[in-house]
Amino acid sequence: MDSFGKNFRLHIFGESHGPSVGIVIDGCPAGLLLQAEDFFEDIERRKGGIQKGTTPRQEDDMPVFLSGLFNGKTTGTPLTIIFENKNIRNADYEKQRNTPRPGHADFVASKKYGGNEDYRGGGHFSGRLTVCLVAAGVVAKKILKDTQQDPSVICKASILEIGGETDLEKGLQKAIDAKDSVGGIVECVINNLPVGLGEPFFDSVESLISHAVFSIPAIKGIEFGAGFAAAKMKGSEHNDALENKEGKNFTNHAGGITGGLTNGNDLVFRVVVKPTSSTPATQQTLNIETETIENLSVKGRHDLCIALRVPVVLEAVAACVVIDLLMEEQKIKRVL
Amino acid sequence: MDSFGKNFRLHIFGESHGPSVGIVIDGCPAGLLLQAEDFFEDIERRKGGIQKGTTPRQEDDMPVFLSGLFNGKTTGTPLTIIFENKNIRNADYEKQRNTPRPGHADFVASKKYGGNEDYRGGGHFSGRLTVCLVAAGVVAKKILKDTQQDPSVICKASILEIGGETDLEKGLQKAIDAKDSVGGIVECVINNLPVGLGEPFFDSVESLISHAVFSIPAIKGIEFGAGFAAAKMKGSEHNDALENKEGKNFTNHAGGITGGLTNGNDLVFRVVVKPTSSTPATQQTLNIETETIENLSVKGRHDLCIALRVPVVLEAVAACVVIDLLMEEQKIKRVL
Amino acid sequence: MDSFGKNFRLHIFGESHGPSVGIVIDGCPAGLLLQAEDFFEDIERRKGGIQKGTTPRQEDDMPVFLSGLFNGKTTGTPLTIIFENKNIRNADYEKQRNTPRPGHADFVASKKYGGNEDYRGGGHFSGRLTVCLVAAGVVAKKILKDTQQDPSVICKASILEIGGETDLEKGLQKAIDAKDSVGGIVECVINNLPVGLGEPFFDSVESLISHAVFSIPAIKGIEFGAGFAAAKMKGSEHNDALENKEGKNFTNHAGGITGGLTNGNDLVFRVVVKPTSSTPATQQTLNIETETIENLSVKGRHDLCIALRVPVVLEAVAACVVIDLLMEEQKIKRVL
Amino acid sequence: MDSFGKNFRLHIFGESHGPSVGIVIDGCPAGLLLQAEDFFEDIERRKGGIQKGTTPRQEDDMPVFLSGLFNGKTTGTPLTIIFENKNIRNADYEKQRNTPRPGHADFVASKKYGGNEDYRGGGHFSGRLTVCLVAAGVVAKKILKDTQQDPSVICKASILEIGGETDLEKGLQKAIDAKDSVGGIVECVINNLPVGLGEPFFDSVESLISHAVFSIPAIKGIEFGAGFAAAKMKGSEHNDALENKEGKNFTNHAGGITGGLTNGNDLVFRVVVKPTSSTPATQQTLNIETETIENLSVKGRHDLCIALRVPVVLEAVAACVVIDLLMEEQKIKRVL
Repeated sequence: MDSFGKNFRLHIFGESHGPSVGIVIDGCPAGLLLQAEDFFEDIERRKGGIQKGTTPRQEDDMPVFLSGLFNGKTTGTPLTIIFENKNIRNADYEKQRNTPRPGHADFVASKKYGGNEDYRGGGHFSGRLTVCLVAAGVVAKKILKDTQQDPSVICKASILEIGGETDLEKGLQKAIDAKDSVGGIVECVINNLPVGLGEPFFDSVESLISHAVFSIPAIKGIEFGAGFAAAKMKGSEHNDALENKEGKNFTNHAGGITGGLTNGNDLVFRVVVKPTSSTPATQQTLNIETETIENLSVKGRHDLCIALRVPVVLEAVAACVVIDLLMEEQKIKRVL
Repeated sequence: MDSFGKNFRLHIFGESHGPSVGIVIDGCPAGLLLQAEDFFEDIERRKGGIQKGTTPRQEDDMPVFLSGLFNGKTTGTPLTIIFENKNIRNADYEKQRNTPRPGHADFVASKKYGGNEDYRGGGHFSGRLTVCLVAAGVVAKKILKDTQQDPSVICKASILEIGGETDLEKGLQKAIDAKDSVGGIVECVINNLPVGLGEPFFDSVESLISHAVFSIPAIKGIEFGAGFAAAKMKGSEHNDALENKEGKNFTNHAGGITGGLTNGNDLVFRVVVKPTSSTPATQQTLNIETETIENLSVKGRHDLCIALRVPVVLEAVAACVVIDLLMEEQKIKRVL
Repeated sequence: MDSFGKNFRLHIFGESHGPSVGIVIDGCPAGLLLQAEDFFEDIERRKGGIQKGTTPRQEDDMPVFLSGLFNGKTTGTPLTIIFENKNIRNADYEKQRNTPRPGHADFVASKKYGGNEDYRGGGHFSGRLTVCLVAAGVVAKKILKDTQQDPSVICKASILEIGGETDLEKGLQKAIDAKDSVGGIVECVINNLPVGLGEPFFDSVESLISHAVFSIPAIKGIEFGAGFAAAKMKGSEHNDALENKEGKNFTNHAGGITGGLTNGNDLVFRVVVKPTSSTPATQQTLNIETETIENLSVKGRHDLCIALRVPVVLEAVAACVVIDLLMEEQKIKRVL
Repeated sequence: MDSFGKNFRLHIFGESHGPSVGIVIDGCPAGLLLQAEDFFEDIERRKGGIQKGTTPRQEDDMPVFLSGLFNGKTTGTPLTIIFENKNIRNADYEKQRNTPRPGHADFVASKKYGGNEDYRGGGHFSGRLTVCLVAAGVVAKKILKDTQQDPSVICKASILEIGGETDLEKGLQKAIDAKDSVGGIVECVINNLPVGLGEPFFDSVESLISHAVFSIPAIKGIEFGAGFAAAKMKGSEHNDALENKEGKNFTNHAGGITGGLTNGNDLVFRVVVKPTSSTPATQQTLNIETETIENLSVKGRHDLCIALRVPVVLEAVAACVVIDLLMEEQKIKRVL
């Protein structure tokens, strides 16, 4: 299903080179002040800025509200936001079909949909759709900001590593020098969550966050708190001892989640972003028609390091999960 | 929700020290041959065997079928399997409530449920409930075995590392010597999946597997294919080049998933299991009543390394996700 | 799916002649006082009492709590209640398979499940399972009683008509005289609901109530307020004029629902219950094997008028829907 | 939730006087030929034609495809169809807010959404949104037509009664003469369904159809087969005797559904449509501000009998449910 969430429900649609991409947010509280300007900052962040290594493709990316907004406030009925695809590059996509691009969904999508998929620029599998996630995230973060008491819940993601370097400039330069793409690691921290969000077993906070996070293209791993480092720790070392009655721990190896529930400490998780599939380097692929291996050079507007664009998307899906969980615990009203 | 799955739906219930733990499987195909004997091997595996470092607690763990089984076959209506809790240790749980055990859900559950939770032995948050996941996994694996054509889909999990050692004996001995618990890394490989399972965006295969996997207590991270190592790879290095028209790649850094869909290669993922929270080592915790820090020594039947018991549970949830996805693609019939 | 509800989620299981029938209630608030005694009155009502026309079959029908209850209160985790099937009549069900009983699910279930269904006494399609609905209803009604402020929400169903007679004795006597079964009409009224429950469009209150109501065997129609009589009314006659700011109307032709939402007036709906399929009268059916029409006389313990047993079941499903809607509007706390 | 369906999932959005109304269809099979022309006939039918008693409002009602359609075929990813609201009447809606129109959602919506609802012309509660249902129905019916073998499944709805008259002209004339609106009864028949669609208990065919049907504004009752007439029937009279091994019955009092499952006979149900709330007659309502009863005359473009527009909408939701059920039974492929 192209849907996510129980209370704050996201339905995403669109293709990279179709008329538009968009998202329906069903369950958004009524009375939230919302305007296009609220989206600009995060939409801009998603573009990866003017840094080295980000794509020169520039969409206007102006949110268009099709429903659910009236007199500058959400109505409580489904909020629909679309982004028109204006800056579409003409390319001979038809010709490219015989040589699926490595790392892309071209081959699997064609198999799954029997060749009916919109294959232009990744179609529904394109990173283009993350602008819809960002939009949902803007709404979610605005709810957090406008409705929570002090201190308010804050989702903040940042890049830890690019191409194996914590100095990001250095990491990008490596990619440029190698004429190749590189991966990275992004961390997200959520402050000020109440204790007890999440459901036991199947809807643990880790389950819900990871479910949402892996909907972001290029992410191949996630870890909470100490994460994979826990494999080398002792129990007495990893366990976080309680410091006060509110749930504050002396350490935070659990990343803010115990037994699948938030424990009152910062929720911390990290994801790995694989190197951009569309690398400038020449690669091999199979020509499906001739069944011979061919050299392929993926041309076009692509990012040397897609991880640069991930933080705002990661924040967005995390904020959506948080809203969903807060609503489940009745900590966000239906009418703001 | 204590539910998971769209087509092969799991509803889990029970508490560690209540009358029983159980699972309702709704959507199980009709006509599957099933008997208690089918469950014994995996139930035994879950106990961690007679290895060093596993708990001496031995439940009979005999599956009792409350519904959905008739004349030795599944009926197609909800299949309910329970396990009675026979081997319950008497303990002064009431007294322990003031000093929440570090790493356990005691504190957060109490906050969430207002003190109404069954706090004995972890209650609904106990690892005891994983026997229900194992049972669901047995059903799922039997469906795979009985219905798939050659070669059949096989889920197999194994331990890669204990206490930082690939020599498992050595890893356990470290724990014993340190009088502490240790963590580990477990890998799961699923062979022979068809191309195109999974849904774009929110129900990517990574999303569904990670959602299910994080329902297993003690897991704090997951990575697919090259996983976190991808952060240091170049695109030309990480991309898997297509070898043949069936989808076989020369390499498998993607772990069998591209664009969220299975790509015809082995699905490979690894999880980190934190050290058992109930370590023999003395720890500190807060006495909620007196608000002073106390020393705590968790007594009872506990595992030095809970990772030892994880493989069969990991296989189980993976197999359940696979069944769900195969049913979505109509690759498993409603009546076998 | 054998599941219903978004917040107060019911998962039903079991077969008439299997070990037990049961229900998992996931999402029940924590802290509700609950004991077996709470169920006796409604379970007794479901038996149809000692009236003319009800089946002599008497189960003990003692609720057994498998999970979710601790120290006499709900824990907030899944509440599982089963009823063992003790009073099972031995019959040559195997032989009966060739001659499907008219009005029963025998034929369709066999087609659907490829002959794997538990065909004894209706199996999963038996009215026996309504005891589980009644149990869920007891829980729902207890939540309403214990948590709502004055005046509390009350669901009350009663029989309007039996065999076409409002004098019920007379209606039953008609059936006895005719040696046949008869149908009936049952009305349910829910008082003191707040304004604005329900969701626009797909989850209108009528949608949710009818969805739940048609899960009760033998119900073949439902109408709200004036219902089918509205077809002959004028708009000025049918419209309910507002009397006060709280939503009270001068009339209640809408049955308490406008635009799919509760409007602050009594929610009123009626259902038609078909005559018991297992009539004492001799009927014709096809012998599936010989493909000839045979006379069939359904023997056993059956009700002349199943409508007599419906009120308590109708109340139960209505109460469950009401709880679900109240939870959606955050009018019932997660911890009572 | 503004969503419906398990496999063929509908997400509806929009307000009567907002930019557009629309629907996302998630789960539509890939490869369905689809173009705007396919929608014209049913969109035209929804307008109620040039008959007496239908509104003069004429939207262009041209479907705009935002996603999921490529090269004239569905892609298998979410199909989004919107209808722009071009023909919006300017009115002093602000002023009308104090005097809620009887029979409309004005009052309840305002209570539910705290006054944030788009109150112009009914907003999200407007009958305008049924054009989205009709669009989904066109897609569903086209799937039935293109994919089913002979004989194909056909959903056909027709008006049985207007204003209490089976002669429809006469019924409408009654309304015109009385300067009032009238109600009606609409029947829907679905031919050629296979045996065994539907799920036991909560997802009976009656449950799913009624759930969808009550999402259509103005419907206040539904009955299957003999429906409410069954209340006066004997069991031997109501029971349908099996005629052949394929499930054909001699009679069809059950309306094609036994035990919640399709039984191989025509699925037949009828709904009652209340008289249009916006009657030309003068009515009373409360002025919320002054708390006095006022006379109200609802002006504007309204239907004397909204039932005239219901058949195509009823067919649409019925067809959507049928597709969902056929997909559940794997009788419609994922790729056509």
